[in-house]
Amino acid sequence: MGKRIHNFNAGPAALPLSVLEEIQEELLDFKGSGMSVMEVSHRSKWFDNVINEAVERTGRLLNLGDDFHVLFIQGGASLQFCMIPMNLGLEGKPVDYINTGTWSTKAIKEADIQKKDVRVIASSEDKGFSYIPKDFKVDEDASYLHFTSNNTIKGTQWAEFPGSGKVPLVCDMSSDIMSRPFDVRPFGLIYAGAQKNIGPAGTALVIIRKDMLKRVPDDIPTMLRYTTFAEKNSMFNTPACLVIYTTNLVMKWLEETVGGLEKMERINKEKAAILYDFIDKSGFYQGTAAGDSRSLMNLTFRLPSEDLEKKFVEEAMKEDMGGLKGHRSVGGCRASIYNATGVDAVKDLVAFMALKRKKDKGNIKKSQSDFLRGYQF
Amino acid sequence: MGKRIHNFNAGPAALPLSVLEEIQEELLDFKGSGMSVMEVSHRSKWFDNVINEAVERTGRLLNLGDDFHVLFIQGGASLQFCMIPMNLGLEGKPVDYINTGTWSTKAIKEADIQKKDVRVIASSEDKGFSYIPKDFKVDEDASYLHFTSNNTIKGTQWAEFPGSGKVPLVCDMSSDIMSRPFDVRPFGLIYAGAQKNIGPAGTALVIIRKDMLKRVPDDIPTMLRYTTFAEKNSMFNTPACLVIYTTNLVMKWLEETVGGLEKMERINKEKAAILYDFIDKSGFYQGTAAGDSRSLMNLTFRLPSEDLEKKFVEEAMKEDMGGLKGHRSVGGCRASIYNATGVDAVKDLVAFMALKRKKDKGNIKKSQSDFLRGYQF
Repeated sequence: MGKRIHNFNAGPAALPLSVLEEIQEELLDFKGSGMSVMEVSHRSKWFDNVINEAVERTGRLLNLGDDFHVLFIQGGASLQFCMIPMNLGLEGKPVDYINTGTWSTKAIKEADIQKKDVRVIASSEDKGFSYIPKDFKVDEDASYLHFTSNNTIKGTQWAEFPGSGKVPLVCDMSSDIMSRPFDVRPFGLIYAGAQKNIGPAGTALVIIRKDMLKRVPDDIPTMLRYTTFAEKNSMFNTPACLVIYTTNLVMKWLEETVGGLEKMERINKEKAAILYDFIDKSGFYQGTAAGDSRSLMNLTFRLPSEDLEKKFVEEAMKEDMGGLKGHRSVGGCRASIYNATGVDAVKDLVAFMALKRKKDKGNIKKSQSDFLRGYQF
Repeated sequence: MGKRIHNFNAGPAALPLSVLEEIQEELLDFKGSGMSVMEVSHRSKWFDNVINEAVERTGRLLNLGDDFHVLFIQGGASLQFCMIPMNLGLEGKPVDYINTGTWSTKAIKEADIQKKDVRVIASSEDKGFSYIPKDFKVDEDASYLHFTSNNTIKGTQWAEFPGSGKVPLVCDMSSDIMSRPFDVRPFGLIYAGAQKNIGPAGTALVIIRKDMLKRVPDDIPTMLRYTTFAEKNSMFNTPACLVIYTTNLVMKWLEETVGGLEKMERINKEKAAILYDFIDKSGFYQGTAAGDSRSLMNLTFRLPSEDLEKKFVEEAMKEDMGGLKGHRSVGGCRASIYNATGVDAVKDLVAFMALKRKKDKGNIKKSQSDFLRGYQF
């Protein structure tokens, strides 16, 4: 089967090996159809079963009940940035956003382009988005309150979601969907690009509370209306069959192999604790997110110099650990440990980091200590 | 490897077996990366090679030269229906359409929704879209002239593309892209959902002449601007990596195994001739498209009664020939014989059709002859 590495990519990211093996196994003949899952009609019983299973699994995993539609919409989270204000912004009611980084900023920009009355009610931009804001006032007058549950680039995450009273929450959960259980009831809409925790790139999972569909204007393009997808079980036009199929298999793995989101959360907390504890005690690596805002999915850290960071990433790759370079916009290092990255991968990473520290710690200069101190809280 | 059937689906449709085998072979370890192609970063050298190859192959196969951008945009042809008038409609200049069926009608509707000055300069609606219009006048004042090169549902196809003088042609080639060579120079934009001739569902291939990008307004959502995709080689956000990868392999097969579009066209003509000749001489099956407008991709035909058609589709399936049911909106039968459906499949289908005729022809009633006569030209 060739080599397999530990994959710490931020997205597209690791998928469960058993899922890949199942895809491989049935790639030429899907469920006895004599066709690949890519070759069956999206109007066939074969694909109907796939999409219905994906919808039902999402419902069970997130405990959605009957109040939500589960949709698969192409275009990633980036297309959702524009669909949300277009569909859910109410006449005369502002659209409110909390800005916690690059992705929130992009979401806000798309509402601005549409000339909505945009209010940024909280932001952590003052400290380079290194924390999750705590003090803000939610205005009951808003169309919705948008936030980003996990910030892939800066490595911050909402430990508890903001309260918003009667204002529906709208949340970009691209990088932590299905990593932990939560109460869906305050949410008007949840969306997530699949390529981090639940599948390959090529679809957004969109969960919309049924009452929100009343807001959808009828003068916007058909393919940008949530009603179009809700009324046709995401099959107004040909959906991304292969991507939805793979996503369904990942959710099957979550349900049947992992055993649900409570268990997944326990594993995710264990993985993050191993790595953060090591970093904090290392005297060599320095975490970059505020302690109470740290992400369990994307762990961002620095080494004493950019040169050491470059070597760290290169040498890790030689040891079959990939994807440890920080986002190009911020530098540093980042270990993304989504659902499919196992405890074993994290332990191997820590062992490698310990060896690196041993080798390089004795040579740290004062300028390098100062470099790290810039990231301390 | 399980069973493989002859796949006459209208889309998603047959893919070359060698492509599926290549995907299967490298699914767990893509090019020695130790990751699946679904797990590598879209910013990695591995995926860069994939998308650059896909762009270059498209350029070579269609002889694009340096005047065009090749883009991969999620959302299928249906999202293009709305992006085209939004991006390419010029202030004060009407957008012109030729209506040859369901998909043209949908494209027109999206321009209407945007309150563009839409003119339908020709239509074959008067005869149930069973032919390609010949007599129409192109107005030099139009922003563009949109048409659908092949009509999957009614089985018609433009044998030669309409002349439009200085007006840029815009064409939905979803169901015949890469099935034959053509002169790209009159086209301002060509688009095609991948899931018929060039790949799995989940991306549109969009080919845009560089001068058209000047038309793109800067006040429309970022993800709906062609410039966003042209400036970032389709990677402003995470693209549908797995779908683009598969599409690239299909184009590799077209280039290296088939030997280019001239050879592909020769094979496609041979396949269609075998089937049409048989139908025309059968005295039992009746083609439903006008002779000079017949599609080489989707061959639509009727049997003497709906009951016989139902049995035909069911019995064909038992003989491992799938996808022969006509589109739900028009009924009848349809054999879609895209690039990846081989001459052998068509010959087997004809042999089966001959057996069915032998069995059922003696029992045709007058009412059934009348039924067929309704489709004659």
